[in-house]
Amino acid sequence: MTSATLTTCDLPACSTELTAFFRPHSVALIGATERAGSVGRALLENLVSFPGELFPINAKHETVLGRRAWSSLTSMGKAVDLVIIATPAIQMPEIIRECGICGVRAVIIISAGFKETGAEGAKLEQAVLDEARHYGIRIVGPNCLGLMSPAAGLNATFATAMAGAGRVAFLSQSGALCTAILDWSFSQRVGFSAFVSVGSMLDVGWGDLIHHFGQDPETESIVIYMESVGDAAGFMQAARQVSLRKPIVVIKVGRTAEAARAAASHTGAMTGSDEVLDAAFERAGVLRVDTIEELFDMAELLAKQTLPKGPNLAIVTNAGGPGALATDALVRNGARLAHLQAETVKELDAALPSHWSHGNPVDVLGDADAGRYEQAFEAVLADSDVDGLLAILTPQAMTAPQAVAQSLIKAMENTAKPVLASWMGGSAVAEAREKLNAAGIATYDYPDEAARAFQFMWQRQDRLRRLEETNRLACCSRHSMTEAQALIRQLQYLGRLLLSEAEAKSVLKAAGIPVVETHVARNESEASDHAESLGFPVVLKLLSPTITHKTDVGGVRLNLQNRDDVVEAFRHIQSAVSDVDFAGVTVQPMVTRRGSTELILGCSYDAQFGPVLLFGAGGIWVEVMQDRVLLLPPLSPKLAHDRIQQTRIWRALQGIRGQPRADLQAIADVMVKLGDLALAVPEIAEIDINPLLASEHGVLALDARIVLRQ
Amino acid sequence: MTSATLTTCDLPACSTELTAFFRPHSVALIGATERAGSVGRALLENLVSFPGELFPINAKHETVLGRRAWSSLTSMGKAVDLVIIATPAIQMPEIIRECGICGVRAVIIISAGFKETGAEGAKLEQAVLDEARHYGIRIVGPNCLGLMSPAAGLNATFATAMAGAGRVAFLSQSGALCTAILDWSFSQRVGFSAFVSVGSMLDVGWGDLIHHFGQDPETESIVIYMESVGDAAGFMQAARQVSLRKPIVVIKVGRTAEAARAAASHTGAMTGSDEVLDAAFERAGVLRVDTIEELFDMAELLAKQTLPKGPNLAIVTNAGGPGALATDALVRNGARLAHLQAETVKELDAALPSHWSHGNPVDVLGDADAGRYEQAFEAVLADSDVDGLLAILTPQAMTAPQAVAQSLIKAMENTAKPVLASWMGGSAVAEAREKLNAAGIATYDYPDEAARAFQFMWQRQDRLRRLEETNRLACCSRHSMTEAQALIRQLQYLGRLLLSEAEAKSVLKAAGIPVVETHVARNESEASDHAESLGFPVVLKLLSPTITHKTDVGGVRLNLQNRDDVVEAFRHIQSAVSDVDFAGVTVQPMVTRRGSTELILGCSYDAQFGPVLLFGAGGIWVEVMQDRVLLLPPLSPKLAHDRIQQTRIWRALQGIRGQPRADLQAIADVMVKLGDLALAVPEIAEIDINPLLASEHGVLALDARIVLRQ
Repeated sequence: MTSATLTTCDLPACSTELTAFFRPHSVALIGATERAGSVGRALLENLVSFPGELFPINAKHETVLGRRAWSSLTSMGKAVDLVIIATPAIQMPEIIRECGICGVRAVIIISAGFKETGAEGAKLEQAVLDEARHYGIRIVGPNCLGLMSPAAGLNATFATAMAGAGRVAFLSQSGALCTAILDWSFSQRVGFSAFVSVGSMLDVGWGDLIHHFGQDPETESIVIYMESVGDAAGFMQAARQVSLRKPIVVIKVGRTAEAARAAASHTGAMTGSDEVLDAAFERAGVLRVDTIEELFDMAELLAKQTLPKGPNLAIVTNAGGPGALATDALVRNGARLAHLQAETVKELDAALPSHWSHGNPVDVLGDADAGRYEQAFEAVLADSDVDGLLAILTPQAMTAPQAVAQSLIKAMENTAKPVLASWMGGSAVAEAREKLNAAGIATYDYPDEAARAFQFMWQRQDRLRRLEETNRLACCSRHSMTEAQALIRQLQYLGRLLLSEAEAKSVLKAAGIPVVETHVARNESEASDHAESLGFPVVLKLLSPTITHKTDVGGVRLNLQNRDDVVEAFRHIQSAVSDVDFAGVTVQPMVTRRGSTELILGCSYDAQFGPVLLFGAGGIWVEVMQDRVLLLPPLSPKLAHDRIQQTRIWRALQGIRGQPRADLQAIADVMVKLGDLALAVPEIAEIDINPLLASEHGVLALDARIVLRQ
Repeated sequence: MTSATLTTCDLPACSTELTAFFRPHSVALIGATERAGSVGRALLENLVSFPGELFPINAKHETVLGRRAWSSLTSMGKAVDLVIIATPAIQMPEIIRECGICGVRAVIIISAGFKETGAEGAKLEQAVLDEARHYGIRIVGPNCLGLMSPAAGLNATFATAMAGAGRVAFLSQSGALCTAILDWSFSQRVGFSAFVSVGSMLDVGWGDLIHHFGQDPETESIVIYMESVGDAAGFMQAARQVSLRKPIVVIKVGRTAEAARAAASHTGAMTGSDEVLDAAFERAGVLRVDTIEELFDMAELLAKQTLPKGPNLAIVTNAGGPGALATDALVRNGARLAHLQAETVKELDAALPSHWSHGNPVDVLGDADAGRYEQAFEAVLADSDVDGLLAILTPQAMTAPQAVAQSLIKAMENTAKPVLASWMGGSAVAEAREKLNAAGIATYDYPDEAARAFQFMWQRQDRLRRLEETNRLACCSRHSMTEAQALIRQLQYLGRLLLSEAEAKSVLKAAGIPVVETHVARNESEASDHAESLGFPVVLKLLSPTITHKTDVGGVRLNLQNRDDVVEAFRHIQSAVSDVDFAGVTVQPMVTRRGSTELILGCSYDAQFGPVLLFGAGGIWVEVMQDRVLLLPPLSPKLAHDRIQQTRIWRALQGIRGQPRADLQAIADVMVKLGDLALAVPEIAEIDINPLLASEHGVLALDARIVLRQ
């Protein structure tokens, strides 16, 4: 027996490893039963409307619900594309083997009772996986609601009703939530290309599904409810490719874990945090939303609308209040009001009554007719500083909602910029609203919702742009890290995990990162000699195999002016700690921090996503201000530059209080190099450069800490 | 003629100056007309259903729309309670005079054409106001849609339909928005006790209306769409009183202005900003929301539900996903997951299957029946660390939505804590949801919405608590500022507006605020003598009548160790500026900042709200980190303490990196005193204390700047 071919399917071809799950010609249900209230019966009732062949399997009965039943897969003498299993977990390895023997390649395990029940369950799960791998079977589940493929007429779930057909693929890690979303989708008339309860993702995970729906011509966008990211590499790889073509919108729960660790702040503590996940989503072009409502709003919008080239929205309205509401929502969400060019204002001056708003939002006034609106639409859309248009209409005495809608449709047809509409009110604008919808213009009850939608469109565009930049990076050569690699290997060979400050600095230096000159001195005269050759004043710091917080034990002496000072400082530091903690001192020039900004630049190895960089306000402010961004390497100077603008310390780097602007190029350059170092040397668990001094003259690492992985 | 008495009205008594607007027995419409499409006709059509007496007034016709019309108010020979005017602006002063002569006390001016049209219009407006004041007439409008009082059957607007009756008073500064909200209210079945388009608020403003609806027994909550605050004192006074009894929820547009001034950051630049308004809302117990949707959600919720005593919510759910969604929303909005007491966990261990979640959210698992839910409800509500309960139900195989609803209703009846519900899904839970609603339990489609609602409830409770604290303060004696007042008067007499650092410090010292000892020296020897008596090291700073940014011109010399250093520094400072800019130096002890946190404490006089305090991270970080809160004095130490916890620098004050905790009492004390100073000396335009050093030993103002108002 071999699997049936899928060529007879009427739907557009979509051939991936998972196609049999969504476009099967024949389906078998193991555990089909008449027992009232059982999952097996609910599944069967949903499957009877499947237009392909259906094989209920029941070992004890010859019929179920009046249909012929088979005693086993092998008894059928036919190949099936998809098998759904709702029998107890304990039988599963045996059943999967049978599937394999019968040439089945796609299995959905509905049943629970695996690793969530403890060690025995975990063993069972492994046995299932072993059988599946042996026969090349892909498994969705276990412990899931099943899946639906509305266009194929397949409802392989025990939910009560079939989802409507549409262009959104919905993937959920919570079965309970699936049911609620499904109910909601009926009232909101949202349709799905597929509806998948992923269960515990024993085999088929996010990466497989994203890859599949990326290929599926029926799917325009992918919407995910996520509790855990699972196979991070698979997810990232698929998301990076697919989100270039189709929006992927995720609601990921678990920000609480982040809240719980709010007390930690140095680079290492980032690992596994929600912030890392945000950085990964950003890197993969995935949009994250916070509410179920946004999840679907955005999925529909982003798939259908032209995206704006920039964040600047023009608003044309016939009332000030709604314009102000939209403006506030726009600013709150991080997009911007377009600043109209002088020429545009002049044009509007000529077209509109003298007391128009003379700026954006363009208030065309309460008595505006379609002609006046039209002139405003044309003028703002022609403005090269405008990236999109929101048209607002409130029904007033002279208002003609339909005619204005017609003007907007006309304007939309003549522009490549996105156009949104908010025709406010009920019956007075209902027809006009339908007209707008039919023309493909997204309409919103309230202008604040429209403004938020525009911001999401811009965010998608912005991420796409960065994703393209990232993908270009993949083919670029990186900075050579041979020297740094050699150094690390050497230290590893010596069994060192926590590098000394001097060692850490030599690694950074080898990676091309400017560090303050740092010499190790084992005795007073060595220290004085180094000081002399560096030039006074100098700093002495404890060199210790055990103590990392040097300041706390009196291990740092600043601003030493001469040899006597150095000797005195050496003695002081030596006497402050016990012999085993003392390995000498480091001697460094005293660098003035005046005119410089203290930054932190760090890197830590995340178990799921690999190296993650941290950039932010440094010095003692790291913990207090928590002003930072996380980034996944590799970086380009442009990507680095984009992200550091999202910190508050960015303003200091621009030059405040008469200080010159810091050398931003040098900062970006160091970030790129640190990213390359982390990728080249995966043995690095943690790097903290704090402070990294930044000034107009460049950057300089004053202190550094490196920890290697065991 | 005198105004008719209102005693025959069937509605509960509500006697304020504005009662005639909302409970009139007789109404006249000036400008009643048959002309199709006119405002006068729309008004008349809406007024014909008014159950009291209606007098259409039309100078030219004896009937309008088949009803008798009068030629003028005086021609009626009867008194009316309320007059609505829709005739051209130019006739308005004359008509108001006629109203006055006829004993009318309440007038709605629908017409536009006043100050918004320019100088002529403004003059006309003043004439109207003069007449109104002369006769004791109150005016709503001009330039408004009118108002509705559904319970009285009064639709005095030109909107298309009458609002449904309800318990929410809606006040809007945008007529266009009124129409949209009205339409929306039909589909959402939201009812109103009153619906007021306030227009340009020539006479009746926010304060009057809030005061009125505070008295009105039909009104449970007040909802406002605000573009400008207008008479701030009137608003604040009314809001402070009324919000103790009824929630006031405001959507105020104009955050954009704030965004535009994002570059400015010192205390003075706060004036008139949106942040000041936020501080004022907080002070008056008013809740601010960002979207129209929240505006009405919250108005209904806050009026009906018991408020939580604290921010800690317990969640009981039969599925993990929805619980996680609720948790994320809770944390995102600033409330907290309750930490269950050990005893509660033990009780739940006994009641629930062994693999329940063992914490909050309490996952009672997919097969939970009503009995299991009930035990969980009782256990968490009995926990004294739990301030409220959110029950989540997803329809699963064993779930009995109605029975669980009954358990929740029972639990709610036995607790004083607020109870919210999210029965997710459609038809499966519809009946249960109705049951919950009927029992007065607020239900939400999605648990994230419920969590957000809980956060608003807590915010309302928190503001009420602070409002009570504020009101108590009003009767407390404040710190005596006699000495500081005298000093300021003296400086004013000398014509000084920008005080020198030394002068500013003496004012602060007189107000009881610790300042670093600061002596003025006119020559080298004075400087050296002062230094000697203070003890070395010292700091010399330029004393200049003209230059405020001393550092920029080299006017600050730190860490001077002996008389020679002082003399050299004096000469250096003197030579750095021209003679006219030099008035000597100040000599101050060199205070080490190590172990201290640099704060900024400031105060500026806002034209609308009077003195506003600013507290935040100080030093050079003010502009970069923008880590600050604004507060309206007077303060108690408790109010001050509450608010400073909302800054990030708060964490530094708690003691980081082994530093001891700062003297928080001393910080709060200085804030109270600065507030008292600002209230006692309204001549102060601006105070900047930056830095204010805070350590375990107390606080110390190192530098200060005071500007007086002209």
